[in-house]
Amino acid sequence: MDFTMYETLLQLPLFQGLSKNDITEILTKVKFHFHKFQSEEYICRQDEPCRQVGFLLSGTLQAESRSRDDSYTYSESLPVPHIIELYSLFGLHPRYHASYRAMTDVSILTIDKQYLLDELNNYIPCVFNFSNIICTRAQYLHQQIWRDVRGGLHERFIHFLLERSSRPSGYKLLRIKMNDLAALLGDSRINVSRMLNDMQDKGLVSLRRKEIEIPALERLL
Amino acid sequence: MDFTMYETLLQLPLFQGLSKNDITEILTKVKFHFHKFQSEEYICRQDEPCRQVGFLLSGTLQAESRSRDDSYTYSESLPVPHIIELYSLFGLHPRYHASYRAMTDVSILTIDKQYLLDELNNYIPCVFNFSNIICTRAQYLHQQIWRDVRGGLHERFIHFLLERSSRPSGYKLLRIKMNDLAALLGDSRINVSRMLNDMQDKGLVSLRRKEIEIPALERLL
Repeated sequence: MDFTMYETLLQLPLFQGLSKNDITEILTKVKFHFHKFQSEEYICRQDEPCRQVGFLLSGTLQAESRSRDDSYTYSESLPVPHIIELYSLFGLHPRYHASYRAMTDVSILTIDKQYLLDELNNYIPCVFNFSNIICTRAQYLHQQIWRDVRGGLHERFIHFLLERSSRPSGYKLLRIKMNDLAALLGDSRINVSRMLNDMQDKGLVSLRRKEIEIPALERLL
Repeated sequence: MDFTMYETLLQLPLFQGLSKNDITEILTKVKFHFHKFQSEEYICRQDEPCRQVGFLLSGTLQAESRSRDDSYTYSESLPVPHIIELYSLFGLHPRYHASYRAMTDVSILTIDKQYLLDELNNYIPCVFNFSNIICTRAQYLHQQIWRDVRGGLHERFIHFLLERSSRPSGYKLLRIKMNDLAALLGDSRINVSRMLNDMQDKGLVSLRRKEIEIPALERLL
């Protein structure tokens, strides 16, 4: 095993805490697949079955979630390293909750789900990391839900974005018609438009036809 | 091992799929604690560290969640068998997200967290069940968040309740001032009061001072 492979795995949240010997052993038992994607290529699509765990090793990946009624999409940029939907491997809805698209050249490492149960499960750090990641996801969503909004339109808009974000910072893109956004925020089209233009004047968002681009969500908070 | 113990464990979601031999073996290694609580006693309280997994074996248990700013509480009745916050054992916020109170005589089985990592982890059905339960929790919260609300006050009220419920049915109790509820739903006190009285006329809720009792949430949907 070359030093690079050891370093690569150890930087991934699922493998942190493993010894060099553990990793050497794991490499003889578990099949790791390396994939390259070019800009604009999709790694996987929303609602497809999730049968493997994917790790973003390099490049910029965008998660794009479509609303149930298909009226809008919400996208966010994901940092390296990122695990693609570990929480979709099991449970009642084992399908991707978003589509993942390469924004630059991207490299991804994947492991089939079965290896998690058959092999990685024998390494306490892996089990511990897996449990921590999934529990943290459930806790994060719980906290987003219990972030009560008492303010006006601006607060409801921030809440709308935060609830749908896998992390409360970074680049986000909301593709939506102004009428639909107004309906979802329970306010008038004119008020929503005024708020967004005000945010644009402050350099917080860029507005285009049916698109609201947010360079850094943390600046809105 | 008596037949009853075997049956008891097998009805719990974490142990489903285990063989009788597995369970006999587990009983020699894992300490199971049985607790009895009387009506009105608390099993555990919100924000306390969660260091064990608790199973409701019999009786009626109520989960009571306090809002961050302490302005309201939301309670729901839990069915037997119920696992108490498996998703709070690990992760960044390993504390109870709600308080749990006996509403009748209640019996609870607990297992210390360490046994999950050290022993139960060796049984594939346990690992599989654990992963399914936590992933389902994360997926359920995700779905609640993406249930877009376009309707009026009534739909926003239902959404408020559903998002905060661990399941979309059964008894719920919201303790809140009418002014606070109006602020959270982004409408006027008079409109919220009118909606609630209308629901009371239809037998869907019972209103008392600072309390909204919902005998069966599914009837509101």
